Amino acid sequence: MTMAEAIPSPRILMGPGPSSVSPRVLAAVGRAPVGYLDPELFELLDALRADLRTLFGTSNDFTFPLTGTGMAAMECCLCNLVEPGDNVVVGVQGFFGGRMVEICRRLGATVTTVCAEWGRVLEAEAFAEALQQVGKVKLVACVHAETSTGVCQPLDAIAQLAHAHDALFLVDMVTSLGGMAVNVDACGVDVAYSGTQKCLGAPPGLAPVTVSERAWQVASARHSPVSVWYFDWQLLRGYYDAPHTYHHTVPVNLLFGLQEALCEILEEGLAVRFERHQRVSDALIAGLQAMEVFPFAQEGYRLPTLNAVRVPEHIRDEVAVRRRLLQEFGIEIGGGLGELRGKIWRIGTMGASATHRNVVLLLSALQSVMRTSS
Amino acid sequence: MTMAEAIPSPRILMGPGPSSVSPRVLAAVGRAPVGYLDPELFELLDALRADLRTLFGTSNDFTFPLTGTGMAAMECCLCNLVEPGDNVVVGVQGFFGGRMVEICRRLGATVTTVCAEWGRVLEAEAFAEALQQVGKVKLVACVHAETSTGVCQPLDAIAQLAHAHDALFLVDMVTSLGGMAVNVDACGVDVAYSGTQKCLGAPPGLAPVTVSERAWQVASARHSPVSVWYFDWQLLRGYYDAPHTYHHTVPVNLLFGLQEALCEILEEGLAVRFERHQRVSDALIAGLQAMEVFPFAQEGYRLPTLNAVRVPEHIRDEVAVRRRLLQEFGIEIGGGLGELRGKIWRIGTMGASATHRNVVLLLSALQSVMRTSS
Repeated sequence: MTMAEAIPSPRILMGPGPSSVSPRVLAAVGRAPVGYLDPELFELLDALRADLRTLFGTSNDFTFPLTGTGMAAMECCLCNLVEPGDNVVVGVQGFFGGRMVEICRRLGATVTTVCAEWGRVLEAEAFAEALQQVGKVKLVACVHAETSTGVCQPLDAIAQLAHAHDALFLVDMVTSLGGMAVNVDACGVDVAYSGTQKCLGAPPGLAPVTVSERAWQVASARHSPVSVWYFDWQLLRGYYDAPHTYHHTVPVNLLFGLQEALCEILEEGLAVRFERHQRVSDALIAGLQAMEVFPFAQEGYRLPTLNAVRVPEHIRDEVAVRRRLLQEFGIEIGGGLGELRGKIWRIGTMGASATHRNVVLLLSALQSVMRTSS
Repeated sequence: MTMAEAIPSPRILMGPGPSSVSPRVLAAVGRAPVGYLDPELFELLDALRADLRTLFGTSNDFTFPLTGTGMAAMECCLCNLVEPGDNVVVGVQGFFGGRMVEICRRLGATVTTVCAEWGRVLEAEAFAEALQQVGKVKLVACVHAETSTGVCQPLDAIAQLAHAHDALFLVDMVTSLGGMAVNVDACGVDVAYSGTQKCLGAPPGLAPVTVSERAWQVASARHSPVSVWYFDWQLLRGYYDAPHTYHHTVPVNLLFGLQEALCEILEEGLAVRFERHQRVSDALIAGLQAMEVFPFAQEGYRLPTLNAVRVPEHIRDEVAVRRRLLQEFGIEIGGGLGELRGKIWRIGTMGASATHRNVVLLLSALQSVMRTSS
């Protein structure tokens, strides 16, 4: 493959992520790297970590960009908190809740699931029942923005229940952070994580993580070593905080990009940004409904960042529709995961991808493709 | 932090990694991303994986760029192969051999170490003795290029011993791949991994991994699930190979950069590139010796990629020397790790950093700084 062949085609990324990245952030990603102990890198990291706290709505000291994607952060947070034999209660209202269960089981936990039909929210009452039955629970976990269903999960009541049972509350914010309010501290979330390639508008490869003092103490008091050396919070914190002890070589170009993306976000302003995400999502859904493509997620709980819609019944080959959107128009949208495969489309309106221009382009492209598809 | 403040100072990276990245590779890293299921991405990945096989000197099908650094790859390979109670024999001639031991212990293995004084190579006889004593051994592991000591470990005899005892042979090639010959298949290495930010000349964040069919079969026959979901070979292979099942969102910008770096390497030619690394290292060592700065590693086994030298006795504050090199000349070199802290400097001549220009700049800068340091 020569250099010329390797240049990717321009894409409008409206799938479940990655979303499009602005030229300003891409320029930052392409800057010449510095070493992992360079004093300038720690200046940048300090600023970046402060900006992440602002976005998470937290004063948690231990807030940092994990080297890895959102899935790495899910496993990182779970493996620091969960020990073999621990009771954990996990909400499963879609694909990613299921992954939490899988990871907790590999960690040797006793997992109780609280389930909802895919496309609906988890009910606080179901958590109350589970917590009543299980006895001593170490951790309650759920997904804030289920990327697989487009559902936005209310968190307040579950947080209160978890704390009433002296359990930690861990939340996946991969598809919400930077695109809608998350309010980690106000809501009572002990541990949260996200990914850079969705609403933050940076390339994939980093995962913001925030850990409360309470969760840190629980992790510090564990009886067995953390099973994953690469994800061990004690070692990671020794690098991000003084004395900055070498753990691994952080991906400095991705850190440049994330810092630039956070600057963009704070310059836009969080309230303005969240309103933009909502407005663009509303316009998309209105346009799709006019084409008889209807939302999948429960009304009143639809994400402004990831729009799940039912594949119309007359479309026999939804994969072909998506392929044509990509090949003829350079627009990527996502298909369904797991049990929703073939049944829904997932259309991201996140970060730099959340624009009216993209909505209009997608609507006309989709109309054109659907008119000539079966 | 404003955008202008976030632009990093130009650095000549001659530490233990990251090394400098060429403008061509940086331009690739800054390209607009595509989705993780984009057909163009799999075309790129197929070409990239073929190039990695060429560099590793292997025909192993399962050769891929892991999302993570070299340390992630170390843990990824070990956690797929090692189960609780397994006997493993690990060579420890420096810091990174020690990390293998730590990770194997967390995995519940029974670890036998074969040690050498830091700065010297491991002796095959010591492996023979250990293998004789332990009984059934699943895995023999060691580091090819010890970044902490600058030692190049001969592999052939250890490979033969491992296979004679029906054990797998796993080798860390983080500081050798792309800068010197590694010959995975010819040497009898079953599993090897590296990092992109050293001799490959790409930014940090990816780790090439290669897995023999024999190692794959051992991993596939394990009794317990792989403890780390994010590193599970079965799941990773399902993404990199057909049917390309979603596992995590791969860091596409880093993949663009790695592919460009591999093109650069193959255009230069492996023999030419390896000779350049050796020549530049020889020039550096000659220049340093003229300044009475002497090599640390055992003669005859010195890496051409990472030059470990003793801090001269008259230098009381070696940290200050390195700080001045960075601040006054923009040149990064590394200090010692672990027991070698304060005793050696580690000077990388890797990838785009391995040039005569850099050697001359470093020698004059170091001379100037040492003349005015105590």
